[in-house]
Amino acid sequence: MQQTHTGSLFDWSQLDITIAGLQRHYQQGDFTPRQLVQHLLTLEQVDNHNIWIERLQLPQLERYLTALEQTSPDTLPLYGVPFAVKDNIDLAGVDSTAACEAYRYQPDASATVVAKLIAAGAIPMGKTNMDQFATGLVGVRSPWGAGKNAFNPDYISGGSSSGSAVATAKGLVSFALGTDTAGSGRVPAAFNNLIGLKPSRGVISCKGVIPACQSLDCVSIFALTVDDANLALAAAEGHDLADPYSRPNPYDNSARRYGALTDSKTIAIPLPDQLQFFGDDTAASLYQQAIAQLQALGHQITALDMTPFLDAARLLYEGPWVAERYVATEALFNQDPDAMLPVIQTIIGGGAKPTAADGFKAMYKLQACRQQAEQVMAKVDFLLLPTTPTCFTVAEVEADPIKLNSQLGTYTNFVNLLDMAAIAIPAGFLPTGVGFGVTLLGKAFSDRQLLSLANQFCQHSQQTIGALDKPLPASSVTSPAGKGGVDLVVCGAHLSGMPLNWQLSERGAVKIAEGITSADYRLFAMADGRPAMVRDEHAGAGIAVEIWRVPTEAFGSFVADIPAPLGIGKVQLEDGAWYTSFIAEPRAVDGATEITHLGGWRAYCDKG
Amino acid sequence: MQQTHTGSLFDWSQLDITIAGLQRHYQQGDFTPRQLVQHLLTLEQVDNHNIWIERLQLPQLERYLTALEQTSPDTLPLYGVPFAVKDNIDLAGVDSTAACEAYRYQPDASATVVAKLIAAGAIPMGKTNMDQFATGLVGVRSPWGAGKNAFNPDYISGGSSSGSAVATAKGLVSFALGTDTAGSGRVPAAFNNLIGLKPSRGVISCKGVIPACQSLDCVSIFALTVDDANLALAAAEGHDLADPYSRPNPYDNSARRYGALTDSKTIAIPLPDQLQFFGDDTAASLYQQAIAQLQALGHQITALDMTPFLDAARLLYEGPWVAERYVATEALFNQDPDAMLPVIQTIIGGGAKPTAADGFKAMYKLQACRQQAEQVMAKVDFLLLPTTPTCFTVAEVEADPIKLNSQLGTYTNFVNLLDMAAIAIPAGFLPTGVGFGVTLLGKAFSDRQLLSLANQFCQHSQQTIGALDKPLPASSVTSPAGKGGVDLVVCGAHLSGMPLNWQLSERGAVKIAEGITSADYRLFAMADGRPAMVRDEHAGAGIAVEIWRVPTEAFGSFVADIPAPLGIGKVQLEDGAWYTSFIAEPRAVDGATEITHLGGWRAYCDKG
Repeated sequence: MQQTHTGSLFDWSQLDITIAGLQRHYQQGDFTPRQLVQHLLTLEQVDNHNIWIERLQLPQLERYLTALEQTSPDTLPLYGVPFAVKDNIDLAGVDSTAACEAYRYQPDASATVVAKLIAAGAIPMGKTNMDQFATGLVGVRSPWGAGKNAFNPDYISGGSSSGSAVATAKGLVSFALGTDTAGSGRVPAAFNNLIGLKPSRGVISCKGVIPACQSLDCVSIFALTVDDANLALAAAEGHDLADPYSRPNPYDNSARRYGALTDSKTIAIPLPDQLQFFGDDTAASLYQQAIAQLQALGHQITALDMTPFLDAARLLYEGPWVAERYVATEALFNQDPDAMLPVIQTIIGGGAKPTAADGFKAMYKLQACRQQAEQVMAKVDFLLLPTTPTCFTVAEVEADPIKLNSQLGTYTNFVNLLDMAAIAIPAGFLPTGVGFGVTLLGKAFSDRQLLSLANQFCQHSQQTIGALDKPLPASSVTSPAGKGGVDLVVCGAHLSGMPLNWQLSERGAVKIAEGITSADYRLFAMADGRPAMVRDEHAGAGIAVEIWRVPTEAFGSFVADIPAPLGIGKVQLEDGAWYTSFIAEPRAVDGATEITHLGGWRAYCDKG
Repeated sequence: MQQTHTGSLFDWSQLDITIAGLQRHYQQGDFTPRQLVQHLLTLEQVDNHNIWIERLQLPQLERYLTALEQTSPDTLPLYGVPFAVKDNIDLAGVDSTAACEAYRYQPDASATVVAKLIAAGAIPMGKTNMDQFATGLVGVRSPWGAGKNAFNPDYISGGSSSGSAVATAKGLVSFALGTDTAGSGRVPAAFNNLIGLKPSRGVISCKGVIPACQSLDCVSIFALTVDDANLALAAAEGHDLADPYSRPNPYDNSARRYGALTDSKTIAIPLPDQLQFFGDDTAASLYQQAIAQLQALGHQITALDMTPFLDAARLLYEGPWVAERYVATEALFNQDPDAMLPVIQTIIGGGAKPTAADGFKAMYKLQACRQQAEQVMAKVDFLLLPTTPTCFTVAEVEADPIKLNSQLGTYTNFVNLLDMAAIAIPAGFLPTGVGFGVTLLGKAFSDRQLLSLANQFCQHSQQTIGALDKPLPASSVTSPAGKGGVDLVVCGAHLSGMPLNWQLSERGAVKIAEGITSADYRLFAMADGRPAMVRDEHAGAGIAVEIWRVPTEAFGSFVADIPAPLGIGKVQLEDGAWYTSFIAEPRAVDGATEITHLGGWRAYCDKG
């Protein structure tokens, strides 16, 4: 048990409310969790941002503070870290409303994710405002008042997780929980200069979360820094049998995979005519700056046809998924529809109309989008998109609530439909002072790889955190992102886009580099149509290869499937390092055609 | 090109129409594919089983026979093997009807699966009768007449793939394609003493297949033996980007995983009060016999609560999936509903009614069943269930078409909903003479493991094949099936008691056999003190080795640790089978000492 009295003398203007900052404060004995909470409760909301539906007061916080006083800062990963909870996520003993008074109830138990964070030492500071029933990307659809942007209260906070975002941006908490079905965890992050992590579906349990579209919902995390988002995720994640949509993570996505990047990623952007900013030239220009920033960091940018992603995004609005929102609120809707805001009533009422046949037709279209999107993702590591095309004022949205809301989802709607992970990161400010963001996206369970890339980007580009007018602290993460597998050099049909590449991608392997062997290899086309690469220090050359990181636990089955006379051994690359790679038995070259002079298998295939 | 004229003298009563049998006939020059086809076309249908919707005649078969005459039996895996195609699967140039005259059309292209089988040398003999639009498990719902059981024409053939099953049972083809959404590939197998393989969803492409429930449909295989089902699957399977529901197989499910079982499996059966035979005591008793048979083979039987499986089965009938059948036939249904049989019209018409909200509610229930079923499957390798509770007469089904059909799906309906693989196998005969079957079920992509277990079961219990009154031939598969681990041949320092053996034992590997390579290997002692084994079919000998079973998930790290110039590839043992093993790069023998004459590394070390 640690007690300190120096906290009363602490100069709160020096408070660093990031998780890493608080850990340092507690270790130095600057203040106790109780003193921090007392300080935070003195902070007034400036400009009436309509952040809270219920802000907890000291008596309600007592149980968490008492528990922390039985322990010490070094025993809990989130010791004394204040966080906010969107009001569609249960906190035991505090009402949940989903921003609808008639829906109000008091849960006995906290949602799994809230319980895990409290167990890790975090302190729930209150329940935050939101678009009613998480239906919206704007933040203005609430009887508790429109969420107002942390930088310019004439502008929207973004939604539906409006209060969670603004509470984090304003430094009332270190991080906050949102939910994200179509972008509700990313859009408000963009407008408030925050990190908005939308993990892979099923990574954070939705038990105790009021559903929007139960088949798509994700709990999301707003944080001031990528380090903090990673720490919050580490405490929040885990397979939960109490949530049917929870999934065990089949690949190596552990927290140790988060760290400093040591390699170059391939990142896709849309074709130029697929970008839409609705006339916001600053937004368009900030997006181009983000691309340039990633290039400057050594990553490869490639413009690809995003049709399957954009088609899937449109499906969410035009398709039957709104029926899930109707299912979630059916009792209230049928009994007392006027208890809902008119816009919510209109949208959710639309969910009663489509037939199951309509639903299956949309799912067939989605399945086709999924397959096409997988083909795109097989070519790259990640996507980079604007988080939103632009930002709107509260007045603009109230004047045209459905169309402008729809425009905000241009780049976010498809993500859960296509089972992807996403992280929204700050990318500058619009002339109105509000934040603009970009989003990095990857395949399911790529969360830690996305966080690593996002951190590298932010450390090189982000100036301030949230709306705190404080500089982004240096990342505490310096060690390289953990190798989650075997780095395998491939030289033939397993190269990106080649016929057997799926054997790698389906095992969760990711391409981490292209390269050239040391000048000691000869390449042959065998009679069976496969390549054989043979080390010959006297007559070799450099051969073009790719390096793929294969999860170790999946590598065994990959090796076992390779037909003779090929196998897996070691090959040297031009930097002198030896890598696990395809090798060939001596007999492989009998009757084979030497193609060393072409420099690689792709060149041979292209030659036909 | 092989031509023989001895076929005209062949005693067709000696015909073995299994795939292995035909391969032997062709190798012996007993007859040509043309002569076989001419013979098959002379066979009359006994008792008017209503097998065919269109049986191809010689002029239609000419293109396939001509193509085969340009090749030879040893070049194609299904050379000259006749097969039947359910009439909801396209065969180029021949009408598809789905057993509905008004739906008839002539496809230009064959379905992917048909094209693959023809490319492998198989001959399509015609399009088979079926329950209209594959809606039924009975086989009587067809304008082309009720499918009649191959053993007792008073009884149903089972459906919907009625004609494909009876054609196979009657020896008109070696195997046949069905489709299976709720049991259509398994129920008819049970009643006609056949193997009914329902592979994992997406393993066989559905491109060119008329959908029933597109999100659930599988192409299935009827065969006389498990060996044949495996051979047909090997030719039929493959990821196909033309089918949005096609999936690459992420795990080790290659044909080499099919073989002799060398270990004991854990197999779940339902709790006693979860079994339902609708009063058929013989069926109940035959199911108990099958359990006893598996126990006698050394497998562990455990009774577990099957509630999640049985709940999912009920969902298929009570839920919205019938809306998929409506979507598949919507144009016809809305334009000319009376073009459908009354029972089909009733069922499919029911698919127009549910709302998308109903659909999502059912999907949430299904998701909960999935998660619970995964918990059951985590405890066992496979399930064993009756394929059907009993069998009915044609007259009984016509008197009560919907209820009895529903009863037949008790143990089959849930399988595609829960993304499982299944194989129906013969388990005796009911007093009426018709077949009774049991089904082995496993997780998605367990197809080859299921086939291996099914083959072991059938080899020990099955007396005759189909309705041919011929004994089940001995399986041609003798080499062990890989299971849950990689069987690794070691020849050097990893042998028992040798210095590097700990690298195997620390990974949980166990020695399962000692052996000798085929007489094609040379053994060298490299300058670095390690052995290198090199295949040389001209100057080799048999080398002493050991086989170690390494857990698949631990094998990757083992491989990654092997220093050059050695690696892991494939080596042939004296029984002809290929095993994962150490191989060497060509340069390994530079400056090495040949020790082939010592017959093994241990002898070399002992010699000192």
